Amino acid sequence: MGKRASKKDFRVTFLPFDISIKVPGGTKIAEVAKKADLPLPFPCGGEGTCGECAVRIIKGTHKAKPTATLSMERLSNGYVLACQTEITDDLTIVLPYFQELEIKSFLDMEFFESNRGSISGMCEHGPALVLTELHVPLPTLEDNYSDLRRLEWAYRKKTGVKNISCPLSILSKLAQVLRSQGGRAQVVTLHDLDDAAILDVLPSSKDKKIYGLACDIGTSTVALHLVDLGTGEIACTASSLNQQIKCGDDIISRINYSQKLGHLQELQKLVVHTINNLIDRAIQKTGISHKDIYWGSFSGNTTMSHLLLQLDPHYIREEPYVPTFNDLPLFPAKEIGLSMNPEARIYVAPSVGSYVGGDIAAGILCTPILRNSEEISLFIDAGTNGELVIGNKEWLMTCACSAGPAFEGGGIKCGMPASEGAIETIQLDKRGHARYRVIGESQPKGLCGSGLVDLLAELFIHGFIDRHGKFKSGKNPDRIVESENGTAFLVEQASKTYWGRDICITERDIANLIRTKGAVYSAFSLLLKNIGLGHEKIDSIYIAGGFGQHLDVENAIRIGLLPDLNRDRFHYIGNSSLLGAYLALVCDRNRELIQNTVKKMTYIELNTEPSYMNEFTGSLFLPHTNMDLFPSVNKFLSESRKDISNND
Amino acid sequence: MGKRASKKDFRVTFLPFDISIKVPGGTKIAEVAKKADLPLPFPCGGEGTCGECAVRIIKGTHKAKPTATLSMERLSNGYVLACQTEITDDLTIVLPYFQELEIKSFLDMEFFESNRGSISGMCEHGPALVLTELHVPLPTLEDNYSDLRRLEWAYRKKTGVKNISCPLSILSKLAQVLRSQGGRAQVVTLHDLDDAAILDVLPSSKDKKIYGLACDIGTSTVALHLVDLGTGEIACTASSLNQQIKCGDDIISRINYSQKLGHLQELQKLVVHTINNLIDRAIQKTGISHKDIYWGSFSGNTTMSHLLLQLDPHYIREEPYVPTFNDLPLFPAKEIGLSMNPEARIYVAPSVGSYVGGDIAAGILCTPILRNSEEISLFIDAGTNGELVIGNKEWLMTCACSAGPAFEGGGIKCGMPASEGAIETIQLDKRGHARYRVIGESQPKGLCGSGLVDLLAELFIHGFIDRHGKFKSGKNPDRIVESENGTAFLVEQASKTYWGRDICITERDIANLIRTKGAVYSAFSLLLKNIGLGHEKIDSIYIAGGFGQHLDVENAIRIGLLPDLNRDRFHYIGNSSLLGAYLALVCDRNRELIQNTVKKMTYIELNTEPSYMNEFTGSLFLPHTNMDLFPSVNKFLSESRKDISNND
Repeated sequence: MGKRASKKDFRVTFLPFDISIKVPGGTKIAEVAKKADLPLPFPCGGEGTCGECAVRIIKGTHKAKPTATLSMERLSNGYVLACQTEITDDLTIVLPYFQELEIKSFLDMEFFESNRGSISGMCEHGPALVLTELHVPLPTLEDNYSDLRRLEWAYRKKTGVKNISCPLSILSKLAQVLRSQGGRAQVVTLHDLDDAAILDVLPSSKDKKIYGLACDIGTSTVALHLVDLGTGEIACTASSLNQQIKCGDDIISRINYSQKLGHLQELQKLVVHTINNLIDRAIQKTGISHKDIYWGSFSGNTTMSHLLLQLDPHYIREEPYVPTFNDLPLFPAKEIGLSMNPEARIYVAPSVGSYVGGDIAAGILCTPILRNSEEISLFIDAGTNGELVIGNKEWLMTCACSAGPAFEGGGIKCGMPASEGAIETIQLDKRGHARYRVIGESQPKGLCGSGLVDLLAELFIHGFIDRHGKFKSGKNPDRIVESENGTAFLVEQASKTYWGRDICITERDIANLIRTKGAVYSAFSLLLKNIGLGHEKIDSIYIAGGFGQHLDVENAIRIGLLPDLNRDRFHYIGNSSLLGAYLALVCDRNRELIQNTVKKMTYIELNTEPSYMNEFTGSLFLPHTNMDLFPSVNKFLSESRKDISNND
Repeated sequence: MGKRASKKDFRVTFLPFDISIKVPGGTKIAEVAKKADLPLPFPCGGEGTCGECAVRIIKGTHKAKPTATLSMERLSNGYVLACQTEITDDLTIVLPYFQELEIKSFLDMEFFESNRGSISGMCEHGPALVLTELHVPLPTLEDNYSDLRRLEWAYRKKTGVKNISCPLSILSKLAQVLRSQGGRAQVVTLHDLDDAAILDVLPSSKDKKIYGLACDIGTSTVALHLVDLGTGEIACTASSLNQQIKCGDDIISRINYSQKLGHLQELQKLVVHTINNLIDRAIQKTGISHKDIYWGSFSGNTTMSHLLLQLDPHYIREEPYVPTFNDLPLFPAKEIGLSMNPEARIYVAPSVGSYVGGDIAAGILCTPILRNSEEISLFIDAGTNGELVIGNKEWLMTCACSAGPAFEGGGIKCGMPASEGAIETIQLDKRGHARYRVIGESQPKGLCGSGLVDLLAELFIHGFIDRHGKFKSGKNPDRIVESENGTAFLVEQASKTYWGRDICITERDIANLIRTKGAVYSAFSLLLKNIGLGHEKIDSIYIAGGFGQHLDVENAIRIGLLPDLNRDRFHYIGNSSLLGAYLALVCDRNRELIQNTVKKMTYIELNTEPSYMNEFTGSLFLPHTNMDLFPSVNKFLSESRKDISNND
């Protein structure tokens, strides 16, 4: 029909997106991905030399040029280079970047275990979801009330719960189950205040376990714990990039994307798909069944919560910045298509405002902030969005800023999330040669947040860049290279890296990092000004975010991300949103605590604060325009300069 | 492929069942219907002379023999005789018997209007579903709480309701609606105790009306009122046969049918289909939209309620006769596929036991029984199942019997529901010639319940049948004819009937009617014995059921269906189940009343009552073995016999 006979069409399906596209035979996978609007990295320009566009073919035959960039193991597992492989069949292709990435920054549980006694969240075991063993005597002519009523009586007698509800789906098996073992049965119920919702009724079994999900939906990454609710133990942890990344790096670009026809639906599908992939991965590792997961505690920023529920986030970004909901009642997981038990219920942590979401409300539980009545604490969550909370038991103030994804590896040439192959700590010697530690101890692929903080600080204190973040001319010129993105500092040369290409940082990257740290610091300054407090009044600072395991506080102060206070006041706590969601899952009283905390918080809208721009501009220096704010950094710089001139 | 080329296959789809079947060209519709297991009447044996197998073809061409039994109007509307029409195309065929029948026994509203002051149900207007006009001020930077929270505040301020819930589906349009008219909006909410569930949020509109359904799901017939909930007025009434009839006439046969694979699903689909057809019909007549129907109050016997929810009714018919539920929380209409607003909620009136269902619980509200503290009332619902309730404000006893569908026209050769063409009252002269009144004043098609009661009484008092229900030999032999079903009494000759065939009643029909009335009466006797009360202690008797508009109480006593008490104690109230459902719909306090009434009722299980068989056997006479129980009938018979012998 006008098509050339030689060019047969084939269907290519990309996972995890489930996007299908028809293309003529002979097309390269790289071109198909571009056509389908799917992000694949081609640092070598499609020459087949960097290996970064590796994809995995799980169905269909293909024609690939030989490549040395993929190990035998990877080749035998179906990996090919997208830029070197032609379509000759219907194919199903996995994009490993989205499917396989495992974030390695679960500091939360470590922090939790060593701070159980002091954090605001309650740490005893008491989930809303319980499995109860019941004996419901078989009916007789004298006691021939309905199965449901007899079940309710037995449950009420055992637990004292007043109001019991039961969904239609359970009614349909009630008669069978209550007769299968002489009336011995197990009920799975979700308790909410005085009410119990029956989610399942099962024949009695010694081995039955019930599970819940704690899930942090970040703009860049999504992480979850699959939790045995009988013990509170984490059966499995999984994380990956949020598949929505293909629609924009930060909140504002997602909101913009959502405004076109069908895009809101797509964004929701992508995040649900991301979560379902993580559930599947946890299920595969543990052998647990989807149908045994009855309860989910989710936290995310306000936009993420809205997109999860397919709610138009339009008004979040328009003055006066109003979300559709702050609080949400529990809702059935099936309503949004999550792969859990059909009757599973989902709790979404409430938002304080359009830019301070449930991730912050839940995160505060991981700090002692609500326990202190005199001391003042500051909580900073430096994710793609930066949020700050200051206060104590008596009062809480909060604000947010648009930090950008730089500290999670987004928007930085050699940036990456804190996953295998990421440089997480780095030191430079005075000639600019790097010593670093890589997650997983492999060859480095790039730098995660904590590595970037270190690198920026080291470049600054060794004088490779000035206070504006510009390279100083003539300073160790062998480390300064010309990259396709402009002048760059060479961190590691191609031969020693995983992808076989230079790891370097450009001036543009540095500007990006400075903007990010500046956004957080200026929000902090403004918050203090609003309250009328000086820096020194802050007794403790709790830092959350996806930097990695080893954020160096000294370096974070040196670049002006954190205020120059006594180092022992700082505590880096990792992913507090996930830990907060976990706390709400395993101890239901934490849900109430979160709800009450949100009500107590005063939200300051920086978007309309006229002095924010001034503060921000002042923060676009290393560490800051006003060096008086960073006395210890000032002192260190003076001393090291003396040192340098002495050595010269 | 082994098929003869001349016999092309065609697809025939039968409505309202939506059953499709493939058959070779040339097959008669009658054969196809038989193959599809669909009931069609062929009284003339498929000769094309009775016209009773008329079906309506709404799609496809066909080849029909000419027939005189169908009017020009019907022919032009696509009606053909199933026994005379061959398949020559893919066809869509409507079975009018199921689709078009309109039951004419809505005495309930008439009764209701004239007894508002005395019945147990509350008659003021106060539905659970309300439409509230709200002003939700547009957000500002000072008041930038979420849309949901501002809506909740505005609603709480206006109504004082404490707990407000909102489904996800409404959240998705909340932002738009609350901004479309400067914050003027209407909310549709369902109030349940202290809680309000938001079912819809709409831009403010003067003309908006909200509707509810009151629906009686009978074993034989389904009837509904579409009600304007702003006024309580009935916008439209519709009724039809329960499509489940194709799977069995009574409860027990439906339960048996449900036990085969897939049949439970089929039964549910059939009743939902029946209801949806009625809704569609009401929608067509009134121009109301499906999406404006937000609330449903349903009543039916326990088996019907179970089948509506696709719950296995198996244990209802097995000792100790236990249903899956008595009470049911409100549930979304979409869960069972009803054509209403997606967020509409359904209330199902609670069952007392396996054989005393929500139809009875709701029906009691239509009698003064709960208002009397001294007087004792009896409530009899003689549907396909017969249920009795006796008592007053202080105590209530109830039991049920399997009466069979005879009084609703089922299982009787010339029986039919109380719809157009049914003889509803009939008198015989001494030679057996009939004077009768036909619903719709057309030529008669058959007899409905009240006509059958009359006929049986008249045959008995005129001596055409003896006390066993057998024809007396030699008595006016011109009225006794031989039919294909055995000896019969000719009610009307073929030339004067709608279908052009004799309307007659056979000995088998009479035996069937006697069994039915005997089942009701013996249940009544046994109930009284259990309580230790004599007949005369009953002050009022309220009779419900699908007999028709004009049940003759005198005749009902003469055949021994009702006890021989002062005639002014009897009240025929029509479809009390439907009226009860209506009362619960328009005044929510009636729902509470129903719930409390059910709790108060003592249920006696006749299935296991050893003396029931004796009582039943004694009732298989006209009017009864023990004539002392029917003194007025005895007296009348003696006198009329004297009269007859005097005249002879």
